[in-house]
Amino acid sequence: MERLKQQIDFLIEIDKLKHVFRQTVLIDGSRQENDAEHSWHLAMLAMILHEHANEPGLDLHKIIKMVLIHDLVEIDAGDTFIYDEKGNLDKAEREQAAADRIFAILPADQAAELRALWDEFEQRETAEARFAAVIDRLQPLIHNYVTEGTSWKKNNVTADKVIARNRFIRDVSEPLGIYVEELIADSVKKGYLRSC
Amino acid sequence: MERLKQQIDFLIEIDKLKHVFRQTVLIDGSRQENDAEHSWHLAMLAMILHEHANEPGLDLHKIIKMVLIHDLVEIDAGDTFIYDEKGNLDKAEREQAAADRIFAILPADQAAELRALWDEFEQRETAEARFAAVIDRLQPLIHNYVTEGTSWKKNNVTADKVIARNRFIRDVSEPLGIYVEELIADSVKKGYLRSC
Repeated sequence: MERLKQQIDFLIEIDKLKHVFRQTVLIDGSRQENDAEHSWHLAMLAMILHEHANEPGLDLHKIIKMVLIHDLVEIDAGDTFIYDEKGNLDKAEREQAAADRIFAILPADQAAELRALWDEFEQRETAEARFAAVIDRLQPLIHNYVTEGTSWKKNNVTADKVIARNRFIRDVSEPLGIYVEELIADSVKKGYLRSC
Repeated sequence: MERLKQQIDFLIEIDKLKHVFRQTVLIDGSRQENDAEHSWHLAMLAMILHEHANEPGLDLHKIIKMVLIHDLVEIDAGDTFIYDEKGNLDKAEREQAAADRIFAILPADQAAELRALWDEFEQRETAEARFAAVIDRLQPLIHNYVTEGTSWKKNNVTADKVIARNRFIRDVSEPLGIYVEELIADSVKKGYLRSC
């Protein structure tokens, strides 16, 4: 039962993800989203949208597992806003230390499995990791659009930065890339996002 | 792009799951848990604990997809507490109506796929559906234990009901069944759960 105890300890520890808040607000604008909800939503995006990947034959099971665990490191490292230049300087270092601690709560074989999955997500080298990155970008864009740019306005984000950060989407999914480009253009037109 | 529009509409609609609150409180006791967080947590339990199923060769991918969507119907039907006898009388009817509306937002093929998955979860006839049911019971038990019986006390739940509702766990997973029986016995001993 020592193995089961380690597993339960891990499952109790990761409840803390429900307390890590992101810049993204919920669709009704009522409050900021937490990382646990975000991870669930990304898994749903993966299920529904993976058919739009340019590369055929993606391993959906792996994408879902990746997005379920991709933010666990933020339990220690906190959420770093994508347009926070200063915060992004030491993000990798903070997150590596968090991964070392958190995954190690599990039995060694499962710790290694989840760490490999997280490393793959971070490295963006496989088709699955790149698709996971696309939906991790797409979800907050949709929330920003529907809430008329709430987190863009709050954080003084401009269109040039949003365009630069999301240009890679077309390389992974042509239809989602086109969708995002139109969403950004329409956001500028409607005043949700400052052009500069 | 009509297909993509339907998919995005569905992904926006299901954001409402973040507003459906359960009787379970978070591990730190600070507030009630919502269904989106709960669904994420169950997917993590599935990943970490599926090795404990009595039946070998379970399809983890299916279990994860099942727990990710299992509570979507509560967007319309609300959360029905497991020990709420009156609420459980018309639960099935309310949830069927919700499933009819919510899955139909998707393109027809995906609506049918998710509906089949949800029906399978509800019917508890496959090994995957039974294991999904086990972790759906296990997670609130752990939260109740760690928070010293918060939702049991609040809702006047007694040990006999908890034992009756969770007896099936052993048939699906011997180690998790033993774990749960010990957890319940210890909860009674420590005064987290009234014996009658």
